[in-house]
This record gives sequence, C-alpha cells and structure tokens, in this order.
Amino acid sequence: MGYSLMAGGKRVRPVLLLCAGNAVGGNEEELLPFACAVEYVHTYSLIHDDLPAMDDDDFRRGKPTSHKVYGEGTAILAGDALLTEAFRLMAEAPLSSANPARAVRAIAELACGAGAEGMVGGQQMDLLAAPGRSAAADVTEISLRKTAALLASCARMGGILGGGTTDQVASLGAFGTQLGLLFQVTDDILDETGSFEEMGKGISKDRARGKWTYPVAYGLPAAVARAEELGREALAAVASFSGRAEPLRELVRRIQARRS
Amino acid sequence: MGYSLMAGGKRVRPVLLLCAGNAVGGNEEELLPFACAVEYVHTYSLIHDDLPAMDDDDFRRGKPTSHKVYGEGTAILAGDALLTEAFRLMAEAPLSSANPARAVRAIAELACGAGAEGMVGGQQMDLLAAPGRSAAADVTEISLRKTAALLASCARMGGILGGGTTDQVASLGAFGTQLGLLFQVTDDILDETGSFEEMGKGISKDRARGKWTYPVAYGLPAAVARAEELGREALAAVASFSGRAEPLRELVRRIQARRS
Repeated sequence: MGYSLMAGGKRVRPVLLLCAGNAVGGNEEELLPFACAVEYVHTYSLIHDDLPAMDDDDFRRGKPTSHKVYGEGTAILAGDALLTEAFRLMAEAPLSSANPARAVRAIAELACGAGAEGMVGGQQMDLLAAPGRSAAADVTEISLRKTAALLASCARMGGILGGGTTDQVASLGAFGTQLGLLFQVTDDILDETGSFEEMGKGISKDRARGKWTYPVAYGLPAAVARAEELGREALAAVASFSGRAEPLRELVRRIQARRS
Repeated sequence: MGYSLMAGGKRVRPVLLLCAGNAVGGNEEELLPFACAVEYVHTYSLIHDDLPAMDDDDFRRGKPTSHKVYGEGTAILAGDALLTEAFRLMAEAPLSSANPARAVRAIAELACGAGAEGMVGGQQMDLLAAPGRSAAADVTEISLRKTAALLASCARMGGILGGGTTDQVASLGAFGTQLGLLFQVTDDILDETGSFEEMGKGISKDRARGKWTYPVAYGLPAAVARAEELGREALAAVASFSGRAEPLRELVRRIQARRS
C-alpha cells in the first residue's frame, strides 16, 4: 500500500478536490482526509490495472509495479485494502463527526464515481474492448467512465464538503468531467507523440495493443483541437465563480501544458 | 457481480446485522441496505480469494468461480465494483439521509472490519502463511482478522444503526467476534471430517496446502471443544439482552449444528 501510494504521481485528484472545496469557501484542512481518500482510490485502480490479467504492465512511472515487487496476490490485496481504507479515512474524518450529512453525500459521490457506473465500469469496457475489438465510438464513453467520472466526483466532493450550493456542486461536476476528458486526451496525445520522440518506434503502447484512443481514432490534429475545446469548456463551467476558483483555472492550464 | 451475489450462500453476515439491529430495537427495513452491503463485501472477498494468485479455486458451492466463468480480469473488477457499491448502498440508504451520524459510524465500522487491520489484513497473513510456512500460533490471529473482524463489524453496525447504547454496541461486537471464531472453527472441522466422509482422501484441502487450521494444529477433539466454548462465550456476550436477542442466540445454535 505504501509502496504504490508513495511511488510518485501528480496528485491531480486530491488537488482538484481541495481546489473545488476552496472555490466554495471550504476549509482545506477539513477536506484533507477526503483528498487522501481519492488518491487511495486512484492508487488502488492503478495497482489492479497493472496486473497481468488486466494491462499487464511491469513498470509505472519508471518503477516496478506492485505485483512485480510483491507478487500478484499481495498486489490484489493492497488494492483492496487501499479502496477500503479510503472509505475508512472519510468516515473517520473530523468533518464526518462535525457534519455527517455532508460526509455521507461525499462518500456516496466517491462510491458512485469509482464504482460499476463509473471507473470500474470504464475499466471493464476497456478490458472487453482490447485487443482490436473496440470501436472509435467507444473512446469517449470509456474516457468518461474510466477517467472523467472519478475526477467529476472529486470536484463535486470538494463542492459538497466545502458547503457549496446545489448549482455550484453541479458546475464543479461539469468542470471535473471536462478536466477528466482533457486529462485523458492529453495523456493519449503524449503517448502518441512520445512514441515517436522517445521510444523511436513510431507506435504507441495503446496502438500496439489494438486499443482505440482519441488520437488513434481521429488523428493527432483532431485530438489537439479536442483538447483545446475541452479546456475552454472546463473554464466555462466555472466562469461564474469568483477569484477563489483561480486555482481550478490554473489546473486546466497546467494539464494543457503537460509534456510528460 | 450478479453471478457471484446470487450463487448461494448462507447470508450469515446480513442476518447477523439484522438480528443485532433488532436486538436493540432497530427497524429491519431501514437496516436492509446495510445488510446487503455486508453481503456485497463478503462476496467480493470470495471472488478475489478464489483467484489463481490467491487460493486458486475453480469451484465454490458446486459452481465454477467467477474467474473460471468470466476470466481473471473481469473477476478482479467484479470484486472491486462490489466493494465500491457496498459503500454506495450504505451512503445512499434512506437511513443515511435520516440519520447521517449513525450512517457514518456504520460505514467506518465496515471499512474497519473489512480493511487492512481486519479482513484484508487477515487474507494477507493467510497468503504469506501458505504453503507450509505458517505456525499454529497464527491460527487464531488469522481467524480473528480474516473472518471474525467482519462479523464483529456486522453485529456492531446493527447495534449502531438500530440506536443501541455504547455498551450494547460493544456487547454485540464481542458476540460477533465469538460467532466469527465459532463459524471459522466449525468450517475447519467440516473440512477435516468432510475430507474423510465425502472425498475419501483422508486429507483436507487446507491440510494438503500446508495451511494450519485449528483442527490441523490441535486435533479434532480440541477443535470441537473450542467450538463449544466459543458458542458459550457468544451467548454470554448477549446474556443481558432481552428476548429481542433470541434470534442472535438461535444463530449460535444453527452454526453449531452445521453439517455443510
């Protein structure tokens, strides 16, 4: 659990939750256990996604994956424990005693974004789609569920826990969805261009596996245009927010400027 | 998810939660989503436990296990989704809107019993202990975490959600722990005796794997005596409860009378 939690990562999900909470006037320290919980959930999903029965990856961020270091059984259990402890962190947070009604809504939100209709459902679609059996039409649906659902949940959780209105929470959810799609298409663009520049093979890992991604399905120029459109839509979703939403806008710009 | 949830089973955990809730005057219908959630968690643990990287079982209750029917990747995801949806069921239950403070405590309770210090921790001990590397001393510790922790949580959840006092919840937790240990030792006794009567091999699966169980470590007569002692301790834990605890007492008797 500790190995994978501390193996690096951009911490986009907890940062998004904290920025969203901040945008509606929430207290960052109160939100911190929930921010940790979403990173636990993300980390568990990476451990399970890397397993031989799934994507079968030996390395992530330059380090051996959990099952390469500890074996498959322990890796499965580490993921299971991280997912379970995420809910424990939230339910035992001081905010959950102080304001249990908000906590219960945030817990439901995370379970919804991470569960069968969200992230795990997207991973199952991804699993069934590979290799060579997916269609271009599935690309957006898979990204929506596999990546954007959890990011939307993070943004909504911040809004709920920070005391946002129903409208604010909905706007933050829309922001999270667009940010999630932007994040995924940027990742896929980097996979494609990285495969030329870094690996010198001219073929990305996803392409080699017969998986469709946005740039694979529609080409690089269309993918770049799509990323710009998604960034604009994300910014539009929080246009009515005050200067407190500036960190959310900065998050969009940083994801657009990603080079790795 | 549906295949494994509906593949039979005694539903001991949800029944325990409902009986515990009933013993402190709780409303059964209000508790039902939480009762379903504990069965989701139990079912996920069976799916993952049966995987090739874990116990590598092809059959459970006479039916092919999840990964034999759907493949390993889907089985892992089905377990992940059941665990996540368990928390969603609880957080979205009507009782969680009506009494979020109780709901948050019950959610923390389940996460605690199912997580790294409870069930998953016990499964990791079990994994490291096999084959041929465990000691008799580990037997009770593994049973406590792998089986009894979740049953104790179920009983405590019923007590919390039903509006029990702190003392009542503690008594129900002690009852659940003893019931869990009784359940495990009865299972292990049936494995040993069943291996003679049904399989005709004279060696149980756990014994063949080099895993210690109570009867393997201490012999059958000691295991039968231990089961009787645990039953008495479970009944003693709820001795101060009224006639509303009669179903809890009946649960002890049924587990003691198990023949399969």
